[in-house]
Amino acid sequence: MNMQQVEAGAGRRVQVPLGERAYEIVIEPGALRNAGALIARRLPKARVAIITDATVAGFHLGSLHAALDETGIGHETITLPAGEKTKSFAHLIDVVDAVLAARLERGDAIVALGGGVIGDLAGFAAGIVRRGMHFIQVPTSLLAQVDSSVGGKTGINSPHGKNLVGVFHQPSLVIADTAVLDTLSPREFRAGYAEVAKYGLIDKPDFFAWLEKNWQRVFDGGPERVEAIAVSCEAKAEVVVADERESGRRALLNLGHTFGHALEAATEYDGSRLVHGEGVAIGMVLAHEFSNRMNLASADDAARVAAHLRQVGLPTRLSDIPGGLPPAERLLDLMGQDKKVVRGRLTFILTRGIGQSFIADDVPPAEVHAFLKEKLA
Amino acid sequence: MNMQQVEAGAGRRVQVPLGERAYEIVIEPGALRNAGALIARRLPKARVAIITDATVAGFHLGSLHAALDETGIGHETITLPAGEKTKSFAHLIDVVDAVLAARLERGDAIVALGGGVIGDLAGFAAGIVRRGMHFIQVPTSLLAQVDSSVGGKTGINSPHGKNLVGVFHQPSLVIADTAVLDTLSPREFRAGYAEVAKYGLIDKPDFFAWLEKNWQRVFDGGPERVEAIAVSCEAKAEVVVADERESGRRALLNLGHTFGHALEAATEYDGSRLVHGEGVAIGMVLAHEFSNRMNLASADDAARVAAHLRQVGLPTRLSDIPGGLPPAERLLDLMGQDKKVVRGRLTFILTRGIGQSFIADDVPPAEVHAFLKEKLA
Ligand SMILES: NC(=O)c1ccc[n+]([C@@H]2O[C@H](COP(=O)([O-])OP(=O)(O)OC[C@H]3O[C@@H](n4cnc5c(N)ncnc54)[C@H](O)[C@@H]3O)[C@@H](O)[C@H]2O)c1
Ligand SMILES: NC(=O)c1ccc[n+]([C@@H]2O[C@H](COP(=O)([O-])OP(=O)(O)OC[C@H]3O[C@@H](n4cnc5c(N)ncnc54)[C@H](O)[C@@H]3O)[C@@H](O)[C@H]2O)c1
Ligand SMILES: [Zn+2]
Ligand SMILES: [Zn+2]
Repeated sequence: MNMQQVEAGAGRRVQVPLGERAYEIVIEPGALRNAGALIARRLPKARVAIITDATVAGFHLGSLHAALDETGIGHETITLPAGEKTKSFAHLIDVVDAVLAARLERGDAIVALGGGVIGDLAGFAAGIVRRGMHFIQVPTSLLAQVDSSVGGKTGINSPHGKNLVGVFHQPSLVIADTAVLDTLSPREFRAGYAEVAKYGLIDKPDFFAWLEKNWQRVFDGGPERVEAIAVSCEAKAEVVVADERESGRRALLNLGHTFGHALEAATEYDGSRLVHGEGVAIGMVLAHEFSNRMNLASADDAARVAAHLRQVGLPTRLSDIPGGLPPAERLLDLMGQDKKVVRGRLTFILTRGIGQSFIADDVPPAEVHAFLKEKLA
Repeated sequence: MNMQQVEAGAGRRVQVPLGERAYEIVIEPGALRNAGALIARRLPKARVAIITDATVAGFHLGSLHAALDETGIGHETITLPAGEKTKSFAHLIDVVDAVLAARLERGDAIVALGGGVIGDLAGFAAGIVRRGMHFIQVPTSLLAQVDSSVGGKTGINSPHGKNLVGVFHQPSLVIADTAVLDTLSPREFRAGYAEVAKYGLIDKPDFFAWLEKNWQRVFDGGPERVEAIAVSCEAKAEVVVADERESGRRALLNLGHTFGHALEAATEYDGSRLVHGEGVAIGMVLAHEFSNRMNLASADDAARVAAHLRQVGLPTRLSDIPGGLPPAERLLDLMGQDKKVVRGRLTFILTRGIGQSFIADDVPPAEVHAFLKEKLA
């Protein structure tokens, strides 16, 4: 972890050293105004197709257009509906068709301007049009800036489950303008914050402690916001570099996600009930509580995690989700359809305490079932 | 080139040494009966989803089922309509859904039993389900055995052009049963033969001369068939290993294809008028004639290529295509939409004579236009 002294106004750059797929993450308030120059330096002469959603377009598309026009970068724009349901084959086909209709070539780029939904969908399109075009992430949600825009996982949902279809396709550049987060709803900001806290819980206990002290300034948008995002990107980049295609250590990033994905599926990806980061927040608390039940972690650590997430305004209990949940059997089944399953055994991220997570690939489904039953009671 | 002495009944194995993505091509009459054992050795315990087309299923699905049952490999089968139009998003979605519904996991495999259409579609599905599953090619057309099943290019067509959407996804194993080609229509066999001849024309003049002498035995199915397929696979594997993702030398494999793809598009992928290999046959003759027109190659070589392809029964002239063709402008336009275009310049494979092809990335469109106009007259 790199806990640099926080300087006012300073931007940060994080490198993702993936050999010939290496790229840079630019983290800075106002970076969007500089997007044209950043793109031109990385991909001279490329034209771009911007994929965005209607909400983000309303706030920030004008700035991106201005920045591209300033540097003479030709652009087309495809605006999709906001929301998780946009991560579908139907919208993927729309994007692919529009990019081909615009006659973009392999050396041109798809630019994702939006949250994780737009990033995942646009990245998947960039991975398959002409068997791979350049891809630039301009993440506009906190979740996207600290998580989904880094690491090259792209994809869409299937009726059979979330993110079950996609490719690994690394971006050529990530431009994270920390000021665009000011237009994000407080609820979405909190949801993204769950992923920030996750990095502390995985293996950075000092960062978690720092967040307990500084979270309000991260929300308010001072240099602490840049710092929290940079530390998160470094943490994610480190894991991705160690295990690009998720065969091993990268699974740690799923802390809270096996439970979380099941909850998202159980609420039918209805964002009015639960958004991804909220599912992760509840999932991380459940992971700590389950680890305690398995005599791995202390009850105090589980309580401390729940207390911090509740303090920032995140849901932490199954009962925080409006509208009933299905029974434990069904939740377990939804966890099983998650792709982190190898030959019927559940792979879980468990923990020995804050910052001491590990991969457990032999979790007995019966234990999880009993635990969920209690939690639902 | 490896022109081994041809032994009766002998099978051949060709290695594709792509590091951790290395795989083997088993070339042998009757190999299909051995598919269960071959798969089990490569992927112990994997379940498989077989993707095939209705025509191939009628001839060979029973043998594959028997081979899998014998070794206790669980299998699902998805049978699609035969024909180029199956390489569409609609059928891709069908396959993805069926594989997910069967709850196949990352360590399981998709098996393509069919020609290039099934291989390209199934390989694309294998590349995107759970961001990549194992993939096994059981090519049943000559074209698929010598070309499409080797090298990891997968994909579907778009209304904007052929193969414009897909991924690179290498198979884990290729099982080429040379005896299944006996049920292939003579026309499809000839079409695949165009790709065999292509390897000679690219950089193996001796192989081309060998084919001029032995082509009838290749058609009849003796050990010469195994030999021709093995030499072709070796040639393709060599290029793929040198340039897995087609940034350079791999483009040589497109000899005849820039013209050929335009002709396929111009005939609306209507296989009753023109199938892929026929487009390639005409395209290769055009490439030699155009090279002659550019004072690169002799008229004799162009004539020799046309004579051999005509002798085996392939079309070699634009006028061999039934139903009219669009004007030269339109054909040029269709060539331009091909993905082998970099910033508006046409990239062509030209030649200095038989076995002396090279990549020309600065071909003036006006020259091609004039040439096509003459040829259409
Ligand atoms: N690829 C990965 O590695 C990865 C990692 C984590 C999550 N994800 C995916 O990311 C998605 C969730 O991402 P998300 O939370 O960003 O969802 P999202 O893209 O739906 O964004 C959330 C909402 O915020 C709005 N929004 C985004 N930026 C805004 C801004 N600056 N101002 C105002 N509104 C703004 C969006 O329009 C949307 O309504 C999920 O689909 C999840 O599966 C992917
Ligand atoms: N991925 C690559 O690198 C690559 C390379 C070259 C071509 N291709 C693609 O391959 C496709 C053409 O392949 P193809 O010519 O095999 O087409 P195909 O798959 O349509 O097969 C041709 C016809 O032969 C039938 N058939 C196949 N095997 C048979 C058998 N053993 N007995 C009886 N009938 C049989 C099929 O049902 C079909 O009707 C095109 O889509 C082309 O773009 C891909
Ligand atoms: Zn997440
Ligand atoms: Zn071909």
